[in-house]
Amino acid sequence: MELKVIAHIENGFGSKFGIPRQSGLCGIKSRIVFEPEYASPEAFRGIEQFSHLFVIWGFSEGFAAGLSREFSPTVRPPRLGGNKRLGVFATRSPNRPNPIGLSVVKLLDIGRGYLTVSGGDMANGTPVYDIKPYLRYADCVPEAVSGYADAHSADRLKAEIPDALGRTLPEAVIKDIKEILENDPRPQYRDDGREYFFEYAGYDFGFRVEDGRAILGHAEKKK
Amino acid sequence: MELKVIAHIENGFGSKFGIPRQSGLCGIKSRIVFEPEYASPEAFRGIEQFSHLFVIWGFSEGFAAGLSREFSPTVRPPRLGGNKRLGVFATRSPNRPNPIGLSVVKLLDIGRGYLTVSGGDMANGTPVYDIKPYLRYADCVPEAVSGYADAHSADRLKAEIPDALGRTLPEAVIKDIKEILENDPRPQYRDDGREYFFEYAGYDFGFRVEDGRAILGHAEKKK
Repeated sequence: MELKVIAHIENGFGSKFGIPRQSGLCGIKSRIVFEPEYASPEAFRGIEQFSHLFVIWGFSEGFAAGLSREFSPTVRPPRLGGNKRLGVFATRSPNRPNPIGLSVVKLLDIGRGYLTVSGGDMANGTPVYDIKPYLRYADCVPEAVSGYADAHSADRLKAEIPDALGRTLPEAVIKDIKEILENDPRPQYRDDGREYFFEYAGYDFGFRVEDGRAILGHAEKKK
Repeated sequence: MELKVIAHIENGFGSKFGIPRQSGLCGIKSRIVFEPEYASPEAFRGIEQFSHLFVIWGFSEGFAAGLSREFSPTVRPPRLGGNKRLGVFATRSPNRPNPIGLSVVKLLDIGRGYLTVSGGDMANGTPVYDIKPYLRYADCVPEAVSGYADAHSADRLKAEIPDALGRTLPEAVIKDIKEILENDPRPQYRDDGREYFFEYAGYDFGFRVEDGRAILGHAEKKK
């Protein structure tokens, strides 16, 4: 089957680094901007009745680079430290036969040709293939057991933004950066004390993790 | 993006008629049978830790017939009687830009090259594009509001299988047929008293709906 791109994600993430590991973990906003063909207000009639949506999207370039390789039946989830192998169908890893991502997002606002949502885990520019309403009676399974993914789901870091850096940043960016840091955006859970980098809202950020704290050490406006 | 078929659905449904409107509504079993390339036990390592899975699949021929038509921004959901138009992105209708279906299923058993699941709403032969573990902390949203879809989610018919027909059917088929009828498999909610037909487990079935009862009137083994 050939999928048509119906929309793109617009948000502050400049690369795949810093993006939450799953949807719903933080409240950072994204816009889903529809292609002209699908942007008619008619196509959204009734969507305001739903608090949450599914987004079906494509893992973009950074990830897709790995996709020309042959199919590997196992992957190393970052959540398990990156040194334990699990079957690809037991993970949400991007290295899967079809590079499709699935996220639950909160619907905040309906614009002309776009939807504003929060809770996404998609990079800026991500292609979108479908939007579906989240149906509580079918899609919410409170008794679901999620094995290794349950164990660390509530783990959060304490975000620390030194005053000297905080003074150089807009309020709205500080709020988002705190959420990003709390969700531990390190690609793997290694306690090696190294500095990690990501881009957000036109800035380059760097941080270190020490004793459960994520300490911002670098913030610079991109040129 | 071009999607590769990684598996097919095997179950008793012979056509799109009779299939539950959403996943999770009834406990009928399906097998997800993987293509040889993706059937290695390694690809499922760790999946036993999850009680539920997402299946991303393709609406098959019966539906796809409608897809050569031009994109229509609105559809008429059967749940609303088929005479009210809603935006396609506010529904789970198969008539969408990309004919992708999404279902939550319960994982029952892991076989060699297949998974047995229940709760699916896919026809026999449906192509499958991805299997993802259901992550309770990300995918279950108890506070979700689902508008018109909430209103009738608990509606059930009382299934009646006359003794004369029941005696001609295996126990396991009777159990499944009861579940199918309880979930009101009529394509539209019209109280016109007409007989509706569907195929299941190698039989042709017919039923009528009267005063909240779904009465089986016809059961014949297919030749």
